Amino acid sequence: MFSISPFDSALFRELLSDAEAARLLGDEARIAAMLRVEGELALAQADCDLIPGEAATAIARAAAELTLPAIKLASGTGAAGVPVPALVKALKQALPAEQARWVHFGATSQDIVDTALVLNCRELLTLFEQRLAGVVERLAGLAHAHRHTLTAGRTRTQQAVPMNFGFKVANWLAPLLRQQERLQQLKPRLFKVQLAGAVGTLAAMGERAPAIAERLAERLELAPGRNWHTQRDSLVELAGWLSITTGVLGKIGQDWLWLSQTEVGEVTFTNGGGSSTMPQKCNPVNAEILVALARHNAGQVGQLHQAMIQEHERSGSAWTQEWLTLPPMLIGTAVALHHARDALDHLVVNTARMQANLGLYNGVIFAEAATFALAKQMPRDQAADLVKAACQQALNGDQHLFALIQERCGVELQLDELQQHLLDGGATSAWFDDILNTAEHS
Amino acid sequence: MFSISPFDSALFRELLSDAEAARLLGDEARIAAMLRVEGELALAQADCDLIPGEAATAIARAAAELTLPAIKLASGTGAAGVPVPALVKALKQALPAEQARWVHFGATSQDIVDTALVLNCRELLTLFEQRLAGVVERLAGLAHAHRHTLTAGRTRTQQAVPMNFGFKVANWLAPLLRQQERLQQLKPRLFKVQLAGAVGTLAAMGERAPAIAERLAERLELAPGRNWHTQRDSLVELAGWLSITTGVLGKIGQDWLWLSQTEVGEVTFTNGGGSSTMPQKCNPVNAEILVALARHNAGQVGQLHQAMIQEHERSGSAWTQEWLTLPPMLIGTAVALHHARDALDHLVVNTARMQANLGLYNGVIFAEAATFALAKQMPRDQAADLVKAACQQALNGDQHLFALIQERCGVELQLDELQQHLLDGGATSAWFDDILNTAEHS
Amino acid sequence: MFSISPFDSALFRELLSDAEAARLLGDEARIAAMLRVEGELALAQADCDLIPGEAATAIARAAAELTLPAIKLASGTGAAGVPVPALVKALKQALPAEQARWVHFGATSQDIVDTALVLNCRELLTLFEQRLAGVVERLAGLAHAHRHTLTAGRTRTQQAVPMNFGFKVANWLAPLLRQQERLQQLKPRLFKVQLAGAVGTLAAMGERAPAIAERLAERLELAPGRNWHTQRDSLVELAGWLSITTGVLGKIGQDWLWLSQTEVGEVTFTNGGGSSTMPQKCNPVNAEILVALARHNAGQVGQLHQAMIQEHERSGSAWTQEWLTLPPMLIGTAVALHHARDALDHLVVNTARMQANLGLYNGVIFAEAATFALAKQMPRDQAADLVKAACQQALNGDQHLFALIQERCGVELQLDELQQHLLDGGATSAWFDDILNTAEHS
Amino acid sequence: MFSISPFDSALFRELLSDAEAARLLGDEARIAAMLRVEGELALAQADCDLIPGEAATAIARAAAELTLPAIKLASGTGAAGVPVPALVKALKQALPAEQARWVHFGATSQDIVDTALVLNCRELLTLFEQRLAGVVERLAGLAHAHRHTLTAGRTRTQQAVPMNFGFKVANWLAPLLRQQERLQQLKPRLFKVQLAGAVGTLAAMGERAPAIAERLAERLELAPGRNWHTQRDSLVELAGWLSITTGVLGKIGQDWLWLSQTEVGEVTFTNGGGSSTMPQKCNPVNAEILVALARHNAGQVGQLHQAMIQEHERSGSAWTQEWLTLPPMLIGTAVALHHARDALDHLVVNTARMQANLGLYNGVIFAEAATFALAKQMPRDQAADLVKAACQQALNGDQHLFALIQERCGVELQLDELQQHLLDGGATSAWFDDILNTAEHS
Repeated sequence: MFSISPFDSALFRELLSDAEAARLLGDEARIAAMLRVEGELALAQADCDLIPGEAATAIARAAAELTLPAIKLASGTGAAGVPVPALVKALKQALPAEQARWVHFGATSQDIVDTALVLNCRELLTLFEQRLAGVVERLAGLAHAHRHTLTAGRTRTQQAVPMNFGFKVANWLAPLLRQQERLQQLKPRLFKVQLAGAVGTLAAMGERAPAIAERLAERLELAPGRNWHTQRDSLVELAGWLSITTGVLGKIGQDWLWLSQTEVGEVTFTNGGGSSTMPQKCNPVNAEILVALARHNAGQVGQLHQAMIQEHERSGSAWTQEWLTLPPMLIGTAVALHHARDALDHLVVNTARMQANLGLYNGVIFAEAATFALAKQMPRDQAADLVKAACQQALNGDQHLFALIQERCGVELQLDELQQHLLDGGATSAWFDDILNTAEHS
Repeated sequence: MFSISPFDSALFRELLSDAEAARLLGDEARIAAMLRVEGELALAQADCDLIPGEAATAIARAAAELTLPAIKLASGTGAAGVPVPALVKALKQALPAEQARWVHFGATSQDIVDTALVLNCRELLTLFEQRLAGVVERLAGLAHAHRHTLTAGRTRTQQAVPMNFGFKVANWLAPLLRQQERLQQLKPRLFKVQLAGAVGTLAAMGERAPAIAERLAERLELAPGRNWHTQRDSLVELAGWLSITTGVLGKIGQDWLWLSQTEVGEVTFTNGGGSSTMPQKCNPVNAEILVALARHNAGQVGQLHQAMIQEHERSGSAWTQEWLTLPPMLIGTAVALHHARDALDHLVVNTARMQANLGLYNGVIFAEAATFALAKQMPRDQAADLVKAACQQALNGDQHLFALIQERCGVELQLDELQQHLLDGGATSAWFDDILNTAEHS
Repeated sequence: MFSISPFDSALFRELLSDAEAARLLGDEARIAAMLRVEGELALAQADCDLIPGEAATAIARAAAELTLPAIKLASGTGAAGVPVPALVKALKQALPAEQARWVHFGATSQDIVDTALVLNCRELLTLFEQRLAGVVERLAGLAHAHRHTLTAGRTRTQQAVPMNFGFKVANWLAPLLRQQERLQQLKPRLFKVQLAGAVGTLAAMGERAPAIAERLAERLELAPGRNWHTQRDSLVELAGWLSITTGVLGKIGQDWLWLSQTEVGEVTFTNGGGSSTMPQKCNPVNAEILVALARHNAGQVGQLHQAMIQEHERSGSAWTQEWLTLPPMLIGTAVALHHARDALDHLVVNTARMQANLGLYNGVIFAEAATFALAKQMPRDQAADLVKAACQQALNGDQHLFALIQERCGVELQLDELQQHLLDGGATSAWFDDILNTAEHS
Repeated sequence: MFSISPFDSALFRELLSDAEAARLLGDEARIAAMLRVEGELALAQADCDLIPGEAATAIARAAAELTLPAIKLASGTGAAGVPVPALVKALKQALPAEQARWVHFGATSQDIVDTALVLNCRELLTLFEQRLAGVVERLAGLAHAHRHTLTAGRTRTQQAVPMNFGFKVANWLAPLLRQQERLQQLKPRLFKVQLAGAVGTLAAMGERAPAIAERLAERLELAPGRNWHTQRDSLVELAGWLSITTGVLGKIGQDWLWLSQTEVGEVTFTNGGGSSTMPQKCNPVNAEILVALARHNAGQVGQLHQAMIQEHERSGSAWTQEWLTLPPMLIGTAVALHHARDALDHLVVNTARMQANLGLYNGVIFAEAATFALAKQMPRDQAADLVKAACQQALNGDQHLFALIQERCGVELQLDELQQHLLDGGATSAWFDDILNTAEHS
């Protein structure tokens, strides 16, 4: 075949694909999960005396042992618009007729596809948690290492007020900790069995239906769920979680792009992409990918919301829309987590450039700090006016702000003192500790 | 002014606007909330001995009493790209110089805008909860009323298997109950004060900074929060909640559109839009709006995700993107909840049409039920084959499925019995009770 | 590898993949196109005396003969964030050093990737034109066949006024003809060479630069283009065209879903997906896919617009975002055109059901026609009132509208006459001919 | 009312609203356009002898003179889901019964709404053309002024190769010229009358229907159109044009954000937003808005594509979705064009900073130029290796690249000569002239 999605491409394998995640979500993983569901369904039905135990055991064994290449199901999937009829047929063919008749008994295709998807997602989310923990750990280490590094805080593209770089890193970290919390809250809503039969009533399983649904859930270690064929809210919630995760990483990547510009140079990546003709270049590939994937997931998430609008008890079109959207989002998240971790393993902080950048414009970045320092000795508006005037002069001349302030009012401000105040002052210390403590116990 | 958004338009006031919600989110509400934050900030700072208590009291009083029409802030907002500088200036002008100097002390514009937004959202969410409860109550009533009404379950546009209409209604209801649960979980993350100063360190408030932030939170009955200037995850989570809510309502609206088609006719709305030249028409306006708003919010939600990608300590462009996106989503949700409630107050269920539709095609919709009934007396595959053949004959001829089955195997199926089985059977009863119980205690 | 995108999946190969299109856009096609560009670039440079002719000939031959599996470029692509450095290295290795030094002379990676993309798109657009012509032809045939078939026109889910089905089909067709027109207009903007060097100035090719760019365009039969590294408007225009195309097909698919509902039954597909337990089912798979792909492309198109916002002379993140978005859109369009054609080859029109549906509700669908007929004999408002009253009676009773009208005013309306008027009347004939003539000459 | 959309808000009037554009699209403009269509329709029908000339004249006069505040139509719009029935009723009330009966004769609500929308859009597009011309003119002036200003070309956040700033500006301009071309191509498809009656057949106007549609088009100076009630491709094409326009402006705005950063400082805006506590700040408000609106339109455009998927002859939900989406896109485009023009009136180019930034890193930005210069005297790979090594040394030490090159191979490179080559060399001159010539004749 000719792969066209970068998520599948051999060409982009080390840039935009992710073998580890794809192994948990590719055709083979999906087929294996569907077979597992069919097998466990038979066992659950036997547990509840709906079908013979012997048949169930045989079905479960066949499901576990069957090797079913995706290509064998292609034609049936094309005809039915869903892979399950072909899969059921293949599973039946692996069994004696007497046992085959109990395969997929009373279930509908969507029961199998959705429950298998939940199983695949559960494994992926475990992978995400591991990678997320890795990112959190690295960010926490970086934050600690630079707790006392002063850098320029920047708002609306302009240097604003100095801050410590470690706190900047802690702010990258904080929303990831909330993502861990959100993930724990959404899991019970997501990790649910789908077993509801043709139109959601599970009628074909008779009076034992609720018990079978619960038993299957137990077997798969999922929560017991009612029908959710056209109630897609928990999948959409997952999509939101994925896109918020890549959004948080995208914000970090965006910061890295701005910080690693030639003219800023506060951060460099030792694994940056080079150029044969421009030897000075060091392209921040990881960071670029983080931004690209954040925007990609942000563009995808709305499609899952669109797909909620299903008519009646199953919408073939909306369900297909999910298939087109969710897998790229899952893989994109896996890839982003990988790149974030990789970038952090190659990130170098250039504290000298941070100091140099703070020194641009004759110290005007210390304007607010100077204003508040002066405000101890004169009315605040007066202090602000004085500093504003001194700043204009500093911006247009070659004297340092503090010298100009001293000229104007006789007060001699101490850079060291102001810097110490900026590093420890305000809420920085308290909030830094708060974030890092949470990270440690996450 | 000339309103161009349907959410603001006088023309669409009773279709797409919502006076009650707009009152909580319009210019006036936002200005009032911003003034309130400035006032409470001064009081919190006085509580923590940062500014004089007398000044704080004066500021709080002036903020409460000041009438500040939006138009007065327009010019300043245009110049600064944010309304706060003009608002602060106006507030100062209402005070003696000695007290005015303590207004907005050490805060940044975004502190005020974001905290005010949280206050506005809190009121809106209370409104949403009330309306949601109204929708839940009406759906619960409708579900109970039709617990024993048989209707066609339909998958992929085709009649599939009969089910009870009450259960169909319960399935509309179930995701709304999960939305109530999600809302409780997200509130602590959303209802947080934003007070962090220029770059998030709250440096200008000195060592009392963390205490002031906590005190302000107490005063506003919000959770104490750290800086979240560029950590927009909780706002995005809210946007996801809004769009899932309208998505659930959009699915209901979509069902209503399909059910109220001329050829289906199972549901009618007594408030349907008429046509002067086509007197038979009864346009399901509420349902149309529900679908339109669901798709609209689904289209907007991704923009909030895009806006997460902020550079450094504040992105003017991403923040503006939020302003363009979140208010329409909030109002759209309010409008959708209104239309859902309104539709339920005018919905008529046509049980006769439900019965008639079940009777289309000589009873083939009972194929699965017949198969499972016959499966008690013969192997399931044999039963399926027999019913499939009988169905083909029924579809192509004018004999009822049950008569054809009897011809083929002698078994006489009882429609009443099958119907009863379909109404109570499978998991319907258990799941119905489960949903309705949760609704009752929600 | 484990394919995760349904566009690449073996499992979904016959549902959502497209081997013919993927062959033109997969890794292999892209590598072949990039090699071709490198070869032709060398020849163009020799034509303009920038590099030795002998070297150019050798490079072109090596580029044509080199077999370069995607996997060989994976590692280099991962490191550089773009495949060209690895590709250039491989091409150089296939040549003697003296000739190798002229490979990729003065070009930048994006020159190669973008020009190759244009070449790939040109082949795909040829395929799209062929498939589009096939869809147009089939729709034209269907329109002609049903020029005189009366069916219910439906607005806002309600039967409105009768119309001829052939005209309905012509309306499916009309926007596709405009798409053919748009395609001719966008081609000259899209089919342009990209050759501009590191930052768009083509400085490294010296004074011969503009001539080389023109010569390369001639060789590739593309329009000569200036640099468009960060001017992505023509790619976005293409994306718009793709999504409008699938949108038009999605509207047709949506109509098919509504028309093939059990209760409407006016259209059936002989290749509909079946169900083992519900033998009456005939799932309209093609139509579902058309709607799903229309919504998918509609969800993707905005991402290309987002990716226009590139900083400076190349944005690694925005460019990557394009790679993630455009290929799925291209394949999605190919798949949609395939399904449209396939559906039309299996579509059956059930005229009997059309007649039966027109007869629902005692003829009230003829209300407008009746009003206008009566308006010849009485004031229009009076006619409207009379018909409206008669309709209410017809809707609530069991008498036909025409009988009720006759009772009320003595006028006997002739169904045949009205039907003939509805078939030929108004603008139907003129517009039908207009559309079909355009189709014939398209 | 309480406006909630920033496009309507008094608070954001000078930031995100646009009085001039809103005047052409607000409630009043829409009502006026609808009344005009009703008036001209009557006249066209009289021209074709469908209704009495006297009635038509009276209707046209009443339509022109009627003052109809939006609020008067609110209730009717809410009930019908569309404003036309209430508007028709009001127009009838302004006329004697004998003439009133001919109002809106045979038309459907959508005919009026859509044709009025086309009229509103035509006026807006004229405004856009004027503003676009203003932006083009200013960019052309800026490009000319800086034809000989050398600046750093930057790719993937890194300084790459020097280029002239005038050419950079010309590249901002070029896609706007293509937008002018696209606009001319789409106009004939967009500026079409919609007159097609209940289901698109215009049946109620009898045999004169096509002539009336043409006559109405003539009267409104629109192209004659067939029915396009559910053929929304030309509206979607317009939406694409709007979003590409804001996308081009957004790319310019993004460049301005990067160029005006404190550490880059190559561009400043004299109207930048200030900060009371950080006097050095100069927030690039115009540029921020350009990026925000580009991303906003990019987020909206897909919704118009979604709304193409209409069922049958009119979809109430998809049509409503258009109403929610297109007006904000139109206003957003107007606002963006205003901000682009405003920014250009306040933009200052800091050539000294450009020179200083080129001098960062000891001249390594001249690496490519040096490589190509050396390549005249030694094999290119050897030159590249030599420069690469010299660059490493320059990056890690304090010697200039050219000195290091001279040390290594004895060749003395002349900075002036290289700079002149970079300013005029390659394709810059030819392409610059090409773009500016097109701009001059646009």
